[in-house]
Amino acid sequence: MKIGIIGLGLIGGSFALAAKKYINGVSLYGQDYNPENLTEALQLGILDYSLEVQDYAMMDIIVLAIPVDASLGIGISILDQINDNALLMDVGSTKAAICKKFELHPKRNQFLATHPIAGTEFSGPSAAFAELFVDQTQILCETNKTRPDLLEWAVHWFRNMNMKLHEMDAEAHDKHIAYVSHISHISSFMLGKTVMEKEKDERAIFDMAGSGFASTVRLAKSSPDMWTPIFKQNKENILEVLREYITNLEDFERLLMSDDYDQLFEQMKSTNAIKTILAGINEKNTTK
Amino acid sequence: MKIGIIGLGLIGGSFALAAKKYINGVSLYGQDYNPENLTEALQLGILDYSLEVQDYAMMDIIVLAIPVDASLGIGISILDQINDNALLMDVGSTKAAICKKFELHPKRNQFLATHPIAGTEFSGPSAAFAELFVDQTQILCETNKTRPDLLEWAVHWFRNMNMKLHEMDAEAHDKHIAYVSHISHISSFMLGKTVMEKEKDERAIFDMAGSGFASTVRLAKSSPDMWTPIFKQNKENILEVLREYITNLEDFERLLMSDDYDQLFEQMKSTNAIKTILAGINEKNTTK
Repeated sequence: MKIGIIGLGLIGGSFALAAKKYINGVSLYGQDYNPENLTEALQLGILDYSLEVQDYAMMDIIVLAIPVDASLGIGISILDQINDNALLMDVGSTKAAICKKFELHPKRNQFLATHPIAGTEFSGPSAAFAELFVDQTQILCETNKTRPDLLEWAVHWFRNMNMKLHEMDAEAHDKHIAYVSHISHISSFMLGKTVMEKEKDERAIFDMAGSGFASTVRLAKSSPDMWTPIFKQNKENILEVLREYITNLEDFERLLMSDDYDQLFEQMKSTNAIKTILAGINEKNTTK
Repeated sequence: MKIGIIGLGLIGGSFALAAKKYINGVSLYGQDYNPENLTEALQLGILDYSLEVQDYAMMDIIVLAIPVDASLGIGISILDQINDNALLMDVGSTKAAICKKFELHPKRNQFLATHPIAGTEFSGPSAAFAELFVDQTQILCETNKTRPDLLEWAVHWFRNMNMKLHEMDAEAHDKHIAYVSHISHISSFMLGKTVMEKEKDERAIFDMAGSGFASTVRLAKSSPDMWTPIFKQNKENILEVLREYITNLEDFERLLMSDDYDQLFEQMKSTNAIKTILAGINEKNTTK
């Protein structure tokens, strides 16, 4: 079996390693717009071969693990080229646009839209590891549009990887993910921006900031290449949650201005219920 | 030497353990408004004795490790009661109000205002450990108002604990800390609130949220008892940074509305410079 990985970052590289680990007799092919990533992935043994455009038709599986605008850009051409028994899957953080784009393609039933909820602090091939996805959620969208035999193969693979499968409508995915992921990135980017604008002296931040600050601005390290197209594709949902977030911050501001500390206390107290949710997420992440 | 700890949470308990570890021949006394914390601290061997009001005059050192409004409330009375060679120190997250409150007290020179930049996910006596402060910053305010022999003793202790000392004006402390700590808590509380308001189904959050979400809302677990008085005492500085944060979020919103993805990209790209700062903070936290 030949698997092609397009995009050799943390996610693509980890899918390659998980394929090597969980599928017998597999050959891994890969490509990346950055030649250094390709060289590194070959050197690290993540890949067996470089994937060229003329190889697409030879692949049994192709995984698209590139920014979501790039997937839209080259997806149709890849779908055109794959053979009649191959599966193309993407792993992007938005699902409606790609499902829409492929909707009328004659090979739509050879495509599977997925979103693995996994990641770490780090990026690039050297950050990849086969167990990244263990116990993590794999969201599958519009599975009824994928050919049953290809879907079954993918589900079998994801189950072998110990992923927790979760089927969702693509539009519902994008709406929910705006709340539980995309807004966190905006919050973190703008918090980092606010602090850096004010504290020109990095030393002062370094001396006074603790683990709480580090935690809230961590996502501000994220790649703009990856996130700009996500924000673009999920614009409407993000604008909705962003407005609600700003409204809550302005409520907080008004309560503080008017010295309504009882109400501030109550808001924080009820938000403490997030503990239950965080305990669940942390448990999920520490069982790896 | 007798040390009294008022407030047996993570910080107070860890100061007690650090005193036991780094000071020879010390007896630890403690009190807490919650009798369970006192019992637990005694059982865990964090304390040797319960600290009663009539014991204050016997103490060589008293550490105030309670919410900042409570410190203002009982601080004067404790300062009245300590003996002429004792040191009172507080560890609160605001420094201007307590310095102002004690300004004209006849025993002002027996007080030292400190803010150890340290903490973990956990709270209560069982969360305390002697090494919490290793390699962490200890901010000291208005040290010129503390009697030199008492200051010297405290500095010697903090250095033995391997803390990094940093002197600051109390007003400057409150201004900077609003940026590098207080706003992170508001950002996190309101983000948690926004998500919980929208996602009534905790299961959906749990299934779809990853480590990024967990990181940005982690501080929403913080205690409203501790944070309400901090927001109250540092109101003016917090209102300033909160307004700047909201303005940046509204800029982001406007750029997204007008499809100005180049500008969004640039904002995120320049905020990526936070990496350097975060690397420094993480290094500080992993050298423990």
